[in-house]
Amino acid sequence: MAIEVVKWHGDRATILDQTRLPDAEEYLEINDYRVMIEAIRELKVRGAPAIGIAAGYALALGAQQIRETTQDGYLRALDEVIAAVNASRPTAVNLVAATAKLRQVALTTPEISAITGALTRAAVAIQEDETVAMSALANHGAALLPDAGSVLTIFNSGVLATAAGYGTALGVIVRAVALGKRLSVIACETRPLLQGARLTAWELAREGVPGRLITDGMAATVMAQGEVDLVITGADRIARNGDSANKVGTYGLAVLAHAHGIPFYVAAPLTTVDLDIASGAEIPIEQRDASEVTQFRGVASAPPGFPAINPAFDVTPARYIAAIITERGVIRPPFEEGLSSGRQ
Amino acid sequence: MAIEVVKWHGDRATILDQTRLPDAEEYLEINDYRVMIEAIRELKVRGAPAIGIAAGYALALGAQQIRETTQDGYLRALDEVIAAVNASRPTAVNLVAATAKLRQVALTTPEISAITGALTRAAVAIQEDETVAMSALANHGAALLPDAGSVLTIFNSGVLATAAGYGTALGVIVRAVALGKRLSVIACETRPLLQGARLTAWELAREGVPGRLITDGMAATVMAQGEVDLVITGADRIARNGDSANKVGTYGLAVLAHAHGIPFYVAAPLTTVDLDIASGAEIPIEQRDASEVTQFRGVASAPPGFPAINPAFDVTPARYIAAIITERGVIRPPFEEGLSSGRQ
Repeated sequence: MAIEVVKWHGDRATILDQTRLPDAEEYLEINDYRVMIEAIRELKVRGAPAIGIAAGYALALGAQQIRETTQDGYLRALDEVIAAVNASRPTAVNLVAATAKLRQVALTTPEISAITGALTRAAVAIQEDETVAMSALANHGAALLPDAGSVLTIFNSGVLATAAGYGTALGVIVRAVALGKRLSVIACETRPLLQGARLTAWELAREGVPGRLITDGMAATVMAQGEVDLVITGADRIARNGDSANKVGTYGLAVLAHAHGIPFYVAAPLTTVDLDIASGAEIPIEQRDASEVTQFRGVASAPPGFPAINPAFDVTPARYIAAIITERGVIRPPFEEGLSSGRQ
Repeated sequence: MAIEVVKWHGDRATILDQTRLPDAEEYLEINDYRVMIEAIRELKVRGAPAIGIAAGYALALGAQQIRETTQDGYLRALDEVIAAVNASRPTAVNLVAATAKLRQVALTTPEISAITGALTRAAVAIQEDETVAMSALANHGAALLPDAGSVLTIFNSGVLATAAGYGTALGVIVRAVALGKRLSVIACETRPLLQGARLTAWELAREGVPGRLITDGMAATVMAQGEVDLVITGADRIARNGDSANKVGTYGLAVLAHAHGIPFYVAAPLTTVDLDIASGAEIPIEQRDASEVTQFRGVASAPPGFPAINPAFDVTPARYIAAIITERGVIRPPFEEGLSSGRQ
C-alpha cells in the first residue's frame, strides 16, 4: 500500500499520524474540521505542502458542518472556519494560500447549495495539482542523478512532508530508484527533533530504498571516506538569488560537500521560491526552545536548565548549490533568471 | 569543591561515577581492585589519562590484597591483577602503560614488604605527573586564546577525561577564564553518546564557565553567524605529521572552521602522539554498534533494525590544524619536527 499521508474519502479525510512514527503506522479518520486543526497543530500532519492539503480538507469538512441558509450567513460561518484553520500554524504559507483559494471558490459560487461541493472539489484539486507538480519534480531530479551511487540527505523531504504522492528531495531519490538507478541513501538523523531518523528512515524502509542512518556530525566523516556521491535536500524558502533556507544542519552539509567536491542539490516546488526577497539575508530564522536541544522525546541529555542555541533553520548561499530542482525543470546558477521565469 | 574524578585516600580510592552524570554527582568508594576494573569496564571512569590513573590505583588496591610471602608468589599474584586490569579496556594505551610502569617498580623493589608501598607511591606519582603536565598544557593553551570571545568544542576533553586536575581542550578554556579572559563556550552535544551534553555541559556549569549547547549539525550555522572565534578539541591519537584522530564529528568542525576562516586548535598531551605512524591514514577507525545511532539514551529514534554507520572517531588532516597545544608548548605547522622533538 502506498503511504497515504492525507486522503479524502468523499465526505471525510484520513491522515497518517506522524507523531506515532516510526513506532506505529496509524491512520486517523477525521470528519470534523476541529479535529483536523488539532492534527495540524499537534504535528500529526507536517511539511508545508501537506499542511496546505490538510487545510483544504479542513475547510471542506467545515463547509459540510455549516447549516446556514443565506449566502451571507454561509460566508460568515466559513470565515470562522478559515480563521480557525489559519491560526493552527501561523507561519505556514501553504496553509493560508489554500484557505484563500477555497474562500475565492465559495465567493464565486452563486448557488448556496453548490458551495460545499465546489469547495470540496477545489480542496481535492489542491492535492491533485501538488501531486502532478511533485511527480514532475521527481522526474526532473531523477534524470539528474547518476545510475548508481550514494546520496546523502537531511531532515524529511519525503511524501510525509508533501502528502502529494512523492516527496521533494526524497521523491527524487525514490523516483530514480523506481527507474532502475542503483542508489542508496545516507540519512542524517537531524537533531534536535530527529526527523531523519524517525521519518526519512521509515519512508526509506517503507519504499524499499536501501538506507543507512548517521548522526549529523558524521556527514564530513563519510564524505572523506568517499561514501557520498551527491547531497540533495529540500528547502523551506528560496530567495530570488537562489539562497535557500532549510532545516538547521543543511548549510553545514553544503559547505562540507563543496570542500569534498561533491555536488549539492536543492529540490523544492516553485511555491517555495519567494521572489520578493533578494537574498537569504532577508530570511528571518526562528529560534526555538532550548529544551529541544537538551532533550529528546522527554529524555534529558544535559544538566537541567543548561542554555542552548536552537535555530530552526539555516540559509545555504546560492554559491554552494549546483542546481535547484523544481516541477518545471532543473535550474542552474546563476539562479535569478531561472527562478524568476519559473522555467529552465 | 574541585571535581575529584579519581582520588587516592591512602588505602582506598574514590571515583566520580560518570555514568550518573549529569543527573547526579555521585562518588563511589573503592577498596577492591575488581570493583575498580568493573568501574573502568562500565565507563564510570573514562578518558585515556583518567583510565591510566585508575589502572594504577587498581594495582595499588590489588597489591594490598596480596597475601603471598615469597617474591615469586607476590609477582605471580600481581601479574594476575595486571592481566585483569589490562583486559578491562583492551584498546586503552594509557592503561597498559600504567600497569607496565608499576610492574617495573615491583620488579625493582628488593624487599617484599616494601613492594606494596612502593607500588602505591608510584601509582600516586602517575596522577601527580599527569596533573603537572595538564596544568602546563592548560597554561600554554590559555596564552594562545584571545582575551574575549567564543570557543567551540566537541566531546568531553575536560578533567572528567584526565582525572588530572585539568582537562586538555576544556582545561585550556577553564584556565584562560581563571586568568581573567572573558570566554564563553559553545559545546557540540556530540552524538551518538552525547558526551558534550552530558559531561562538558556539566563541567562548564560546575566550573562557572558560561556555555551554550548546540546539536552537532548547528556548528556551521553558528560559525556563519559570527558566533565562533576559535575551535579547540582534544585528540585521541596524533600521527607524526600532525594528523589527529578524535571523536567523530571533529573532522567536520575542522573543515567548517577552515571555510569560515576560524582557527582550529588541538590540545593533547605528548602521550597522545604516536611517532610510529607517519599519517592519519594509518589510524584504524573503530566501527561501533548501529544501535548507538538509532537510539538516544535508550530511547529508539529510528525504525527497529534500521542500518546505521557508526565510526567512533575520525581523522583531521594536519593542514586544517593551526596549532597543537601540548604540555611542552604550542607546536605550529609543519608539525613533524615539533612533535618529534616534543618541544617548541
